[in-house]
Amino acid sequence: MENAMQGAQYTPTERTVPTRSAQRASYDKDVVHSILDEGWVCHLGFVRDGAPIVLPTIYARVGERLYLHGSTGSRPMRMAGATDGEEPGTRVCVTVTHVDGVVLARSAFHHSVNYRSVVVLGTAYQVTDPEERSAALDALVDHVVPGRSRECRPADRKELAATAVVRLDLTEVSAKIRTGGVNDEPEDLALPHWAGVLPLRKGYEAPLPDALLAPGTEVPPHIAAVLG
Amino acid sequence: MENAMQGAQYTPTERTVPTRSAQRASYDKDVVHSILDEGWVCHLGFVRDGAPIVLPTIYARVGERLYLHGSTGSRPMRMAGATDGEEPGTRVCVTVTHVDGVVLARSAFHHSVNYRSVVVLGTAYQVTDPEERSAALDALVDHVVPGRSRECRPADRKELAATAVVRLDLTEVSAKIRTGGVNDEPEDLALPHWAGVLPLRKGYEAPLPDALLAPGTEVPPHIAAVLG
Repeated sequence: MENAMQGAQYTPTERTVPTRSAQRASYDKDVVHSILDEGWVCHLGFVRDGAPIVLPTIYARVGERLYLHGSTGSRPMRMAGATDGEEPGTRVCVTVTHVDGVVLARSAFHHSVNYRSVVVLGTAYQVTDPEERSAALDALVDHVVPGRSRECRPADRKELAATAVVRLDLTEVSAKIRTGGVNDEPEDLALPHWAGVLPLRKGYEAPLPDALLAPGTEVPPHIAAVLG
Repeated sequence: MENAMQGAQYTPTERTVPTRSAQRASYDKDVVHSILDEGWVCHLGFVRDGAPIVLPTIYARVGERLYLHGSTGSRPMRMAGATDGEEPGTRVCVTVTHVDGVVLARSAFHHSVNYRSVVVLGTAYQVTDPEERSAALDALVDHVVPGRSRECRPADRKELAATAVVRLDLTEVSAKIRTGGVNDEPEDLALPHWAGVLPLRKGYEAPLPDALLAPGTEVPPHIAAVLG
């Protein structure tokens, strides 16, 4: 994808400019936001005793901030709240990836994957302001199923106390995108091998209602909307 | 899931025993292998200048080893080949996650995600042995579409020279699994909110043949097999 210099952009840094396939990189805020908003599972990286740890977790975007949450007892949440010398917070990388298709080329070398990913680098801080915490927790639920936070019982005081919320500002951010078809070498085009793209299925299967729902309970509109 | 102590197990370490939801952890080799073999995109974590970096990439399992590949110019590949003092290799974390469903509870707090993930901690080493490199590159193609490596043109010398292969032994490994339905509090069961699971769609859409394929070229059996 061309990195069209139109619209608001994140400033590229030495860490967010890829060493290769630079034409696949984008710093366009609209592009980044659309990738972040389409997903809700990220991979959170942090460093523990000098070694990297990567864990899946859910996230939500509110403006130029990402929010993650977890048990107050969980390691990355504790680290984000820890005061490390003078500075609180913990250095993290949050990566969101949508795999869109498998690209089967005539040559092994040109096999590829169509994907859209966003990498966010920065420092995660624990959110302590009750209003920001509450808005972030609503956003986390609503990011998966819009409107859901108003269609369920809100967290009570004990549940809130057990939940840590961290935020990460969208400052050092890049997207990387591979779309389209097969890029075989011209001299391979006559080879007899099938070539093309296998697009991945997206979305949801039919919902499985909880066994204890009152019989005949319909799927409400806010859920029907995400089922498409 | 119960961590049934049957079958071969990875030895839990201080880093692979979760601080919470320990009942969701598994060290069973068959469980780990099945999660690894179902996916082909992982999130690779490494540390650069003290900060975590997480990038999506493809992988394949061969026995008790994972293989990753990339351009010889790419940063994680270069780092894996670098000699850091006495020891070559680079510390990495490879995480594979399958998101199976969204669990919508009557309470915001008990919203959850059904998933199966594997976290592999260790040191990645560049593979230099030509036979191991060749077998790993075949495995990477075949991991996505079994049999594909025999149904395309193999890499030539120049392509092989441009490709770095790294391996990571399956030693410090854990799986984490959340399955099943809603775990609402008993006092919430009478609430009017819809509760249940939204299973995620899996698999592939109809293949998109390359425009330059000879007209009438059929999808071959090795591809039809993954389309299901």
